[in-house]
Amino acid sequence: MSVLVVGSLALDSIETPFGSARDALGGSAVYISAAASYFANPVRIVGVVGGDFPEEGIAFLEQRKVDLEGLQVIKKGKTFRWSGRYHYDLNQRDTLSTDLNVFESFNPVIPEKYKKSRFVCLGNIDPVLQRKVLDQMEKPRVVICDTMNYWIERKKTELQETLRLINILILNDSEARLLSREPNLIKAGRVIRSMGPTVVIIKKGEHGALMLTESHTFSAPAYPMENIFDPTGAGDTFAGGFVGWLARTDDLDEENLKRAVIYGSTLASFCVEKFSVEGLRDLTYLQIQDRYREFRELSRFAD
Amino acid sequence: MSVLVVGSLALDSIETPFGSARDALGGSAVYISAAASYFANPVRIVGVVGGDFPEEGIAFLEQRKVDLEGLQVIKKGKTFRWSGRYHYDLNQRDTLSTDLNVFESFNPVIPEKYKKSRFVCLGNIDPVLQRKVLDQMEKPRVVICDTMNYWIERKKTELQETLRLINILILNDSEARLLSREPNLIKAGRVIRSMGPTVVIIKKGEHGALMLTESHTFSAPAYPMENIFDPTGAGDTFAGGFVGWLARTDDLDEENLKRAVIYGSTLASFCVEKFSVEGLRDLTYLQIQDRYREFRELSRFAD
Repeated sequence: MSVLVVGSLALDSIETPFGSARDALGGSAVYISAAASYFANPVRIVGVVGGDFPEEGIAFLEQRKVDLEGLQVIKKGKTFRWSGRYHYDLNQRDTLSTDLNVFESFNPVIPEKYKKSRFVCLGNIDPVLQRKVLDQMEKPRVVICDTMNYWIERKKTELQETLRLINILILNDSEARLLSREPNLIKAGRVIRSMGPTVVIIKKGEHGALMLTESHTFSAPAYPMENIFDPTGAGDTFAGGFVGWLARTDDLDEENLKRAVIYGSTLASFCVEKFSVEGLRDLTYLQIQDRYREFRELSRFAD
Repeated sequence: MSVLVVGSLALDSIETPFGSARDALGGSAVYISAAASYFANPVRIVGVVGGDFPEEGIAFLEQRKVDLEGLQVIKKGKTFRWSGRYHYDLNQRDTLSTDLNVFESFNPVIPEKYKKSRFVCLGNIDPVLQRKVLDQMEKPRVVICDTMNYWIERKKTELQETLRLINILILNDSEARLLSREPNLIKAGRVIRSMGPTVVIIKKGEHGALMLTESHTFSAPAYPMENIFDPTGAGDTFAGGFVGWLARTDDLDEENLKRAVIYGSTLASFCVEKFSVEGLRDLTYLQIQDRYREFRELSRFAD
């Protein structure tokens, strides 16, 4: 099944205790589509870059067979840039700078042939833009949406409008608490479900993820990473693996949603092992399956 | 198999957003032995109380069939008292006061008939006292030990001496980071294992628990609690359920250690549903089995 990904394409400058990188390929749409491409086909991208977006960035996405027809290139503009520094424990980061550049006036235009995409993954962008995307789509089967504290704090009403239109919301634990004003994550999930999405997935970083549906709670373990090299993009990669698996299988049963959570976690675990998108460049299906099985072993126990 | 529990018997004054209690029954030895008593027999206690320790406290332990021969009663003394206040999100608490009272000069004396106990659970007390207990024992099969930041910060050398003598250490995530000086929990577990214990269990509160052995990592989910009434004693109850299950089965295989982690988590989930020890008063084996199965459902996913 087809997947449409809308989000940012960025050049990230990152400092971690293990090294630093300048203008490395990043952005939510890049991570989501690269991850989804391991399962689904076609994966289509809508986003915007400036004339300074490197050839290698395009080549990376082309190598992952991502359809770039919906990529706007503003020759005279500059690509969105983000820079951040990770703390020693890698669980926290400081944003050093955000330069929206061409992203500031981004107007997502969905190419005609994208409009029937069955699975839509809205990366973490302005909820008004997320809605603009949905307005152009022709009855997608599933809409998956990511958001962040920035929009919860600044555009809560707009975000709530968007939440009414989506099926699955992915956000992290602090964002879930912020959006629901409820410290208990199980209650937070219920509050958020009442805002629209039938499924809420709460990412908890080193503690794994929770998926809350009408009748079930699923607790996914985190992969026991000893060497996280660069956490950038882990959440987007999770979303990409998740939507990619759903699109591959076209199965929205509870059991398959759980698998999708584990495949998302699997790809995220590869992502953070290397800088930038390098961890998503050359995975084999066997590597992915092996790690999926490791996730099973991690949480399996007998009667 | 027999279980020896050494730790505090206390009168706790607790404030939570949902209510408060004065001089409620508490203390690590109380929670551990009550939890262990659901699986193992005999469960023996060594501790100390003052003349003010309430009849109902004794009656509660007797009802749970805990052997009290090792309980020292200092008629003229006062029982150890702790008071604390939980924050709105219940993940954090402030200690308001700690009055050691008779606990200040506690000298654990192991009754003759306790010395051959096969499973020893050392509650969170001074590591010097923990060692004094072990000096009196006759080759226990397993020694399980709890500790806390207080001892890590103030008696690290003494604690390290104790760690060399134990098999399984149970501590929470912030304590594991403090003891190992390593933010990554998987690495922290390895550092701690190099200090002596072959198995390290890291409790993560609302995020479940990690068990680290030589060859495996086991990630146990947390029960999705919506209504935590009083978190006091959850960690001790976990330890009690864990050691109780091991003593019941007398099986230290990896698979059974995992079951013990889930049984510990199961009892802890009952504990926090009510104030003080009330959640551990009248459980049935069926209730425990049903919740164990709920834990399985929570983290189960298909190939």
